[in-house]
Amino acid sequence: MSYRYDEALDGPLIAHDRNEVVARLRQRVPDLTILHEAEDLHPFECDGLASYRTTPLLVALPETVEQVAKLLRYAHEARIPVVARGAGTGLSGGALPLEKGILLVMARFNRILDIDPEAATARVQPGVRNLAISHAASVHGLYYAPDPSSQIACSIGGNVAENAGGVHCLKYGLTVHNILKLDILTIEGEHVTLGSDALDAPGFDLLALFTGSEGMLGIVVEVTVKLLTKPQSARVLLASFDDVERAGSAVAGIIGAGVIPGGLEMMDNLAIRAAEDFIHAGYPVEAAAILLCEVDGAERDVQEDCERVEALLRDAGATDVRVARDEAERQRFWAGRKNAFPAVGRISPDYYCMDGTIPRRELPGVLAGIEQLSAQYGLRVANVFHAGDGNLHPLILFDANAGETERAEALGGAILELCVKVGGSITGEHGVGREKINQMCAQFNSDELRLFYALKAAFDPLGLLNPGKNIPTLHRCAEFGSMHVHHGALRFPELERF
Amino acid sequence: MSYRYDEALDGPLIAHDRNEVVARLRQRVPDLTILHEAEDLHPFECDGLASYRTTPLLVALPETVEQVAKLLRYAHEARIPVVARGAGTGLSGGALPLEKGILLVMARFNRILDIDPEAATARVQPGVRNLAISHAASVHGLYYAPDPSSQIACSIGGNVAENAGGVHCLKYGLTVHNILKLDILTIEGEHVTLGSDALDAPGFDLLALFTGSEGMLGIVVEVTVKLLTKPQSARVLLASFDDVERAGSAVAGIIGAGVIPGGLEMMDNLAIRAAEDFIHAGYPVEAAAILLCEVDGAERDVQEDCERVEALLRDAGATDVRVARDEAERQRFWAGRKNAFPAVGRISPDYYCMDGTIPRRELPGVLAGIEQLSAQYGLRVANVFHAGDGNLHPLILFDANAGETERAEALGGAILELCVKVGGSITGEHGVGREKINQMCAQFNSDELRLFYALKAAFDPLGLLNPGKNIPTLHRCAEFGSMHVHHGALRFPELERF
Repeated sequence: MSYRYDEALDGPLIAHDRNEVVARLRQRVPDLTILHEAEDLHPFECDGLASYRTTPLLVALPETVEQVAKLLRYAHEARIPVVARGAGTGLSGGALPLEKGILLVMARFNRILDIDPEAATARVQPGVRNLAISHAASVHGLYYAPDPSSQIACSIGGNVAENAGGVHCLKYGLTVHNILKLDILTIEGEHVTLGSDALDAPGFDLLALFTGSEGMLGIVVEVTVKLLTKPQSARVLLASFDDVERAGSAVAGIIGAGVIPGGLEMMDNLAIRAAEDFIHAGYPVEAAAILLCEVDGAERDVQEDCERVEALLRDAGATDVRVARDEAERQRFWAGRKNAFPAVGRISPDYYCMDGTIPRRELPGVLAGIEQLSAQYGLRVANVFHAGDGNLHPLILFDANAGETERAEALGGAILELCVKVGGSITGEHGVGREKINQMCAQFNSDELRLFYALKAAFDPLGLLNPGKNIPTLHRCAEFGSMHVHHGALRFPELERF
Repeated sequence: MSYRYDEALDGPLIAHDRNEVVARLRQRVPDLTILHEAEDLHPFECDGLASYRTTPLLVALPETVEQVAKLLRYAHEARIPVVARGAGTGLSGGALPLEKGILLVMARFNRILDIDPEAATARVQPGVRNLAISHAASVHGLYYAPDPSSQIACSIGGNVAENAGGVHCLKYGLTVHNILKLDILTIEGEHVTLGSDALDAPGFDLLALFTGSEGMLGIVVEVTVKLLTKPQSARVLLASFDDVERAGSAVAGIIGAGVIPGGLEMMDNLAIRAAEDFIHAGYPVEAAAILLCEVDGAERDVQEDCERVEALLRDAGATDVRVARDEAERQRFWAGRKNAFPAVGRISPDYYCMDGTIPRRELPGVLAGIEQLSAQYGLRVANVFHAGDGNLHPLILFDANAGETERAEALGGAILELCVKVGGSITGEHGVGREKINQMCAQFNSDELRLFYALKAAFDPLGLLNPGKNIPTLHRCAEFGSMHVHHGALRFPELERF
């Protein structure tokens, strides 16, 4: 696979001399760990979107809030951009470094500071792994609900930056619904608390604004998360369909009946085969599509919901419905789904994972549209969906060495524009990052982008935090071609630096 | 009761000649209904916080989005402040008019535009009453969850402005959790859509930022709300306690056991007596406190949860637990609670309703603190709580004609500061408005306020939308006395106009 350096990201930034920056930073923050040799920087060149790579100016590995504050104050004074990085598992290049910027790696902020079982909350540092919170809380019968596929590795700070979801977010919400309070540092090194321990906070909702802002507004140094009581029981149904659209309708049927499953996932034939070959989950390899539906709650409810969902699935035309007989089979059913991405990686030299959302009712039509686009671009697409909440993960199979990268990206772009066209959006849970910066021009008009710039400027007037990600410049949108210039003129040319 | 005009609100604003503004507005928006005669303006002088009254420059009653856009463009050009108003039921003076500003009354935007039973959403105009949405959706077995006490009268646009809650928000969330999309006009008359029909939207979370922003960022012209399936069954338990703190502990016990009641309300003896005298709900007038706990869901679950909650209540020391025998008794139990405010109005010449939130565990301590403050200030306090989510509504009883107004307000301020001290906030669901503008100085430091100003400026650089509410100026905070001037200087003096 070929890696690319994005000239547009670094181009407009001021170049600083590496040795000088290192020397000054050592002076200002003597106890800070700094990496700046080529071989030390190499592992930080990309995040989970490995098709983009850049060597950062330097990598800083702070261990205390005071170190981060001092670093930010220096970067602000010296006008050096700062890109924050958690575990680097992000899939949209949100933590892609800048050649002219500092990469601020928060991995050493890995302590769980406090678990309060009575309030059902935990205070954690941003580098704590998502799953580590649930492990630590499990002695109290509690867990942290959002469960991205990368939960064993990804950090809570990165989850906040991307407003991460997961298999269970249909019922339990995204990251923003599962956090209470954030402690952040602004680019000027000021400590600000967003949200509160109480139900609601007065003033503007900065907590929600910050969540999903992809490192553009500040640096998270502490997160207070909500914990939930573990459901007494959970059971999974696996339904087979000989027609993808019928599976799509079954989803609408279940939700329409008022059942809110813990998870409701869909895979198409290509994804099923890939996963079955890899995991031996017991999936029906002849099915056009499968649905995995988990019901959780009190034991008796689960029993009842299970019967209800089975009836709904059969009504919707399922050719077969199986309930996992035991916990081992339940885990196997989920393992197939959770490993669908690497499974597809085994049957194609490269794959490109998309992340669009659509209104649930559009599912059958969009599936047909993706099939058409797949044929048109001559590339196979395996479909894995958080079907319950209309979050699609089409996986585009391609071969970079055969020169198919651009075609794959063009197909990805076309799929996302289809999502926007039916009233959806270009990202469900992976974020915009570097990857979907052009599609943002299709999603938003210039008035909306102008609001984004102004909000960005409210936190970071000099545009030093993660520039070039998440929010495209009007200039970029004009080049991308879907730009509608407002009242005949670009209105905020001075904001073009973002 | 004496009414006050707040000089500080209007003082710094430019005065415009009423007749001239009316004439120009008629020219620019010929079909717009404008009220400007003294007797027509009188009913709009206050909202639900009737202790503050101001006669607006004029009242506009638009009927179309185009009229609102034209009015805003004119107001923006002429630098005339605009205060939006829904049904005027707000309790914090958020819709208090400005003597030098236009009052934009959205009452005629009262159409339900679309109900989509499959997607479980409704598109409504901002003047639609909260309860009217549930009525219209009920043919599909759906309803809109947030239920402020004023739900029969309050409008959804006002609910968005204040991020309204209600008895059921413990389980079903606040307004922000129950809306998908907002169509707004900026002060420049630009139409912007916030949120989307899909699960999550890329870019910054403007939908959440806007919700609860109290008319300071833009004017809502359309709201897309989520609808929920009506629970099959609901039952209410009424538990008596001879000790207020024990009732507080019972709340923690229920939540800690993993039960999420549809509603969990608490009243103290003074509130119980007042409500019983007024409504004859069947409350135990000798109890020091009662808890009302509603469980809802499938019939069989409700039965089971009911037994579980009853056991938990008895374990916590309830002297008596009664389950409403039928729907009529259930309605009676709730009627007592929902009419607690007017009931208290019958036993005191005046009362002042507070709205603080606290971490749930602080309930017993804060109750003791309120009792102490009540004695110290020599004013009775009746307590009504959304106990499940730590949202307190202490009602301060006083007599304005006996000159007790200032003492009542001072006591209210002291109670709110107590809430902040234990990690809570100065408003749960009623908003900041004019009423709690000074307490905001205790809640936030100058760095945080500076972020608020900058966000405000991102939407409304001239500060024309609802100035003087919600976010205090640094100047006001300096006067209030809890101001910590940042780095020895006010940093954004140019923003002082807000």
